[in-house]
Amino acid sequence: MIDVNVNEGPMSRFQTPNPDFAGRVRESFARQAFMAHIGAVLSDVAPGRCVIDLPYREELTQQHGFFHGGIIGTLADNACGYAAFTLAPADASILTVEYKMNIVSPGEGEQLVARADVVRPGRSLVVCRCDVLAVKNGTEKLAATALATMMLMHGREDDRSGN
Amino acid sequence: MIDVNVNEGPMSRFQTPNPDFAGRVRESFARQAFMAHIGAVLSDVAPGRCVIDLPYREELTQQHGFFHGGIIGTLADNACGYAAFTLAPADASILTVEYKMNIVSPGEGEQLVARADVVRPGRSLVVCRCDVLAVKNGTEKLAATALATMMLMHGREDDRSGN
Amino acid sequence: MIDVNVNEGPMSRFQTPNPDFAGRVRESFARQAFMAHIGAVLSDVAPGRCVIDLPYREELTQQHGFFHGGIIGTLADNACGYAAFTLAPADASILTVEYKMNIVSPGEGEQLVARADVVRPGRSLVVCRCDVLAVKNGTEKLAATALATMMLMHGREDDRSGN
Amino acid sequence: MIDVNVNEGPMSRFQTPNPDFAGRVRESFARQAFMAHIGAVLSDVAPGRCVIDLPYREELTQQHGFFHGGIIGTLADNACGYAAFTLAPADASILTVEYKMNIVSPGEGEQLVARADVVRPGRSLVVCRCDVLAVKNGTEKLAATALATMMLMHGREDDRSGN
Repeated sequence: MIDVNVNEGPMSRFQTPNPDFAGRVRESFARQAFMAHIGAVLSDVAPGRCVIDLPYREELTQQHGFFHGGIIGTLADNACGYAAFTLAPADASILTVEYKMNIVSPGEGEQLVARADVVRPGRSLVVCRCDVLAVKNGTEKLAATALATMMLMHGREDDRSGN
Repeated sequence: MIDVNVNEGPMSRFQTPNPDFAGRVRESFARQAFMAHIGAVLSDVAPGRCVIDLPYREELTQQHGFFHGGIIGTLADNACGYAAFTLAPADASILTVEYKMNIVSPGEGEQLVARADVVRPGRSLVVCRCDVLAVKNGTEKLAATALATMMLMHGREDDRSGN
Repeated sequence: MIDVNVNEGPMSRFQTPNPDFAGRVRESFARQAFMAHIGAVLSDVAPGRCVIDLPYREELTQQHGFFHGGIIGTLADNACGYAAFTLAPADASILTVEYKMNIVSPGEGEQLVARADVVRPGRSLVVCRCDVLAVKNGTEKLAATALATMMLMHGREDDRSGN
Repeated sequence: MIDVNVNEGPMSRFQTPNPDFAGRVRESFARQAFMAHIGAVLSDVAPGRCVIDLPYREELTQQHGFFHGGIIGTLADNACGYAAFTLAPADASILTVEYKMNIVSPGEGEQLVARADVVRPGRSLVVCRCDVLAVKNGTEKLAATALATMMLMHGREDDRSGN
């Protein structure tokens, strides 16, 4: 069953072995206590793509009152992880191998939006890219861009007993 | 005045133009709402070095119950930033240009410890390295290692009007 | 004077303070002994963009007979540097601060093509992205993707006396 | 048989499943045409460690007459790859997944020395660190530092038929 909220727009050019990829991403996301804690919302899931939104909160800021760089990195890492996860078989879980992120402008505004796309899917390693946008007065501005390597762990379901 | 809690151990091989570097790092850290929100503690500050501790909290976890990768990245980014900040003149603030982090084992345990050291100080760019250790039953294990580039913004004090 | 071989296609969305940006890139490229040594060709220069081609040579290979990863990195680094350089004032030179590259498939084929674009230009730091394609029997395949930080050194001309 | 030129100094803290690790690294290195082409020398191999030296040559320079950044990256990538390879079983080959490198000073001098160490060995992924030093008038200076992810390909010998 394919999730009905899926964006099947022009960016989608990947095929997934798991028809319920979106339900599976949403279910895993819901189990991440830290995402709920900061108020992050999974706003889009498609094969090879994941978008996470985060409304502003005072407690997520650094010393200048902007979104903390760690929060920007958290969204990029997570959006990349779930973009890769959309292409995983039903019995695989996903781990972050590494990521690199350039912060190009302050995370200033009422919301952050992290848009991740798979660059190259592999059997075990999946390379993803993510842009994190800061939305201020309704206008998007690039705050950070990331390049990440994710690893599929075959035969390991994505629950608390895993990893 | 030099902060009395400063570790001047064998790792310290940098000189700083700001005698109050430690007080300044502590004051800036205290203004980061996100650090207080997650319970992070600045446990050591020395010229070219910064250590941040973070006790376990359920709300900081990912889907397997371990510390979320975003939290690990947050500590690495912040520890690097403050390690660089210890070498800054009194009128400079600091920005993260970019960082890259490898997560090498799960962030599992009762505490994370992020130890950052300056690799190469420059007038405007400072390169730092950080190891993030997960402490489980009192035993440290490497969870992640990061390499980061920080930028000193001369003539801009590190307050909310800055950046 | 604008170089006549410049691609002013739909990818160009940057303005440059130096009308002779292309001539300047070509002149600097020509002074890189290593580029001539490996047979690299500057095939396209536009504001915020640079493309470098490299035909196959036996001496540029690794142990499997494919293009060496170091060669792939060399092209990515250089293409990013010159993409950034197109946006520099006439009195500035450029330095690589850092780059990160994922190698996603073997560099196998008769030619490599490195296509770099500026992601975000700044007064001193310029963030660039580069895809390196391996062309085999006329078909392009992504071999690597890179994310790089370049630094403009204002007031330092790009000659041998500089840095 | 253990290679007699192996440095078993205090840095060596890894065990390898392949007693002939050093012979295997030297043999693979010798098959890299590009290493011979630039004049690189494998100067040290130990479990979890590899050092590569490169004497100055005019044709390896950039526009300022220093070692080209691509050459510095090539050495870092290769030294990390072979550091990881020392810990591989006899039937495995090695691939570069990705690396990130900060260039912290010009590659100026009569020789480059790339010293790579394994940070964390894994069954399939090996994380390595490398410092590249420029030796000028006999004095070493840090030119670059890299963090890399290598992948062991089990059951694939490291010859031209492999990948």
